[in-house]
Amino acid sequence: MPDADETAITSGISHALDQLVTLCTQPGDVVLVESPTYHLAVRILRDRPLKLIAIPGGPGGPDPAALSELIASLKRQGERPSLLYSVPTFNNPTGLCWSDDVRRAVVALAEHERILIVEDDAYRELSYDGEAPPSLWHIAPSGVVARLGSFSKSLAPGMRVGWITAGRDLIARIRTCGVMDSGGGPNQLAAMTVAAYCEDGAFEPQVARFREAYRARRDALMSALAAHLPAGWQARMPAGGFFVWVRLPAGMSSEALLPVAEAAGMSFVPGRRFFCDSRNGDDALRLAFTLYSPAQLETAAVRLAQAMRRCVSDAEERSG
Amino acid sequence: MPDADETAITSGISHALDQLVTLCTQPGDVVLVESPTYHLAVRILRDRPLKLIAIPGGPGGPDPAALSELIASLKRQGERPSLLYSVPTFNNPTGLCWSDDVRRAVVALAEHERILIVEDDAYRELSYDGEAPPSLWHIAPSGVVARLGSFSKSLAPGMRVGWITAGRDLIARIRTCGVMDSGGGPNQLAAMTVAAYCEDGAFEPQVARFREAYRARRDALMSALAAHLPAGWQARMPAGGFFVWVRLPAGMSSEALLPVAEAAGMSFVPGRRFFCDSRNGDDALRLAFTLYSPAQLETAAVRLAQAMRRCVSDAEERSG
Repeated sequence: MPDADETAITSGISHALDQLVTLCTQPGDVVLVESPTYHLAVRILRDRPLKLIAIPGGPGGPDPAALSELIASLKRQGERPSLLYSVPTFNNPTGLCWSDDVRRAVVALAEHERILIVEDDAYRELSYDGEAPPSLWHIAPSGVVARLGSFSKSLAPGMRVGWITAGRDLIARIRTCGVMDSGGGPNQLAAMTVAAYCEDGAFEPQVARFREAYRARRDALMSALAAHLPAGWQARMPAGGFFVWVRLPAGMSSEALLPVAEAAGMSFVPGRRFFCDSRNGDDALRLAFTLYSPAQLETAAVRLAQAMRRCVSDAEERSG
Repeated sequence: MPDADETAITSGISHALDQLVTLCTQPGDVVLVESPTYHLAVRILRDRPLKLIAIPGGPGGPDPAALSELIASLKRQGERPSLLYSVPTFNNPTGLCWSDDVRRAVVALAEHERILIVEDDAYRELSYDGEAPPSLWHIAPSGVVARLGSFSKSLAPGMRVGWITAGRDLIARIRTCGVMDSGGGPNQLAAMTVAAYCEDGAFEPQVARFREAYRARRDALMSALAAHLPAGWQARMPAGGFFVWVRLPAGMSSEALLPVAEAAGMSFVPGRRFFCDSRNGDDALRLAFTLYSPAQLETAAVRLAQAMRRCVSDAEERSG
């Protein structure tokens, strides 16, 4: 459990990330980002004069050896990364968690290189198969990790209430920075409403209801994909969160598939949106399952399967 | 009236200013600020790598000729101001309004020099002696002024709801920037609550009640100052807003006066806090009157007068 002076209230994770970038980066700094990663976080980073560099790795998280080499190579060029943005638990877009070994290795590297890890932990509460893995903040020495938590996924996005757990020095800077001091920080009405809701003991049962409903939706989607999609796709079962990351059959483009799928009545986010380098990711797509009933998810899988078959037959026609 | 595409909802003025600075300045840019000006806005600007330069002028607003000379001199040094922050109506801290001539001259200069004027218009609704003067936004061509409005003073600061009125291009950038796109913008619950309150017709009568109460408080404070303060002070009656700016008798320091006044049971913000260059402003202080009853304001004036007399007699003792 963090102490009170290791925590500050925020208006949600996007707001907290925006504020951290203002306070913890200098123009021209290198910011390391997972790959694939949450595309709208990248847009927040891109609104600043920062150099974004993707961390080598895969859907299971960054490769610590490759990360170490990347940092060494940046240092040889006179660059020093100041921040590392990541979603280690129930990742957006892959739904997957970093392994314990990867967590410990990345934390040790960040500590050694004095890089602040920004741990976007939006999905932690939505764990469907037992406990979520310990957060990077939990395993790291003080000052290495700023963990961003939120009620947006576990309660209601429109409340815009979250929190940041970090070292005491950083929390003190956040609490006393200009925009906070001037009253431009979290919404007091919303924060006090959420606090009263939690104090009433209403939060835990509500999250338990979400977990139960979303687990059933995840299971329905995974079964429907297995039942309907044409051969050659791959997806790993996410143990929590909102998303399933589908790798398409060899040669199929998710950007090309999107309009066909939308014409069939379903949609997804193409994989390229989640990569800093848009040459990557066209072989994958992100499905979001929490807003739909099991029956709707089954229909969506059928429509996706139709669209995939149409893409294959169009490609065969063109090449034939 | 601005069109819908000239307006965006914000989480209040501090949030809007923070966002504008992110989107409309480059590191190292010169930002011009009124002098004196709202001290916490200056803190928001100081959290960035910007060069803040005070605009020559006085409590009645900037001096357009001196501003023009300042810009010319900056240009000779290879610097170009990108932003001008101001509170032209019921200024914080002086309570005063720029004259019509100053408004038109500063707008013309900003248009010619392509400087974005950020007009902090937090107090416009709290006008006690007739209509507030037209906003800079109202008299300027599109694109020259970004006007920041708020419900914080006219309804409730804890709602954190405001708006920005600006050129279409800037509004489009604000609406589509990373942090907004990711949901980290205004609080939807609070914004919809305020919208329903306004649609119900409840806002105008509530502001009218504030105006009536605050006018009585302003009048009580000004009368009490006139009745009790020792000779040599000066203050101009503010026609709206929250503040009275008191110039102290010659030789009296508001920083030295503050602990004496607080020991006597009243407080104020010393003038130096409102100047970029802290060598200025020690001859003045800011009184805020809206939170206190006329009787409390009378007591405060009596205590301030005691503290001023004590400072004078202490100074006489030291020099005698």
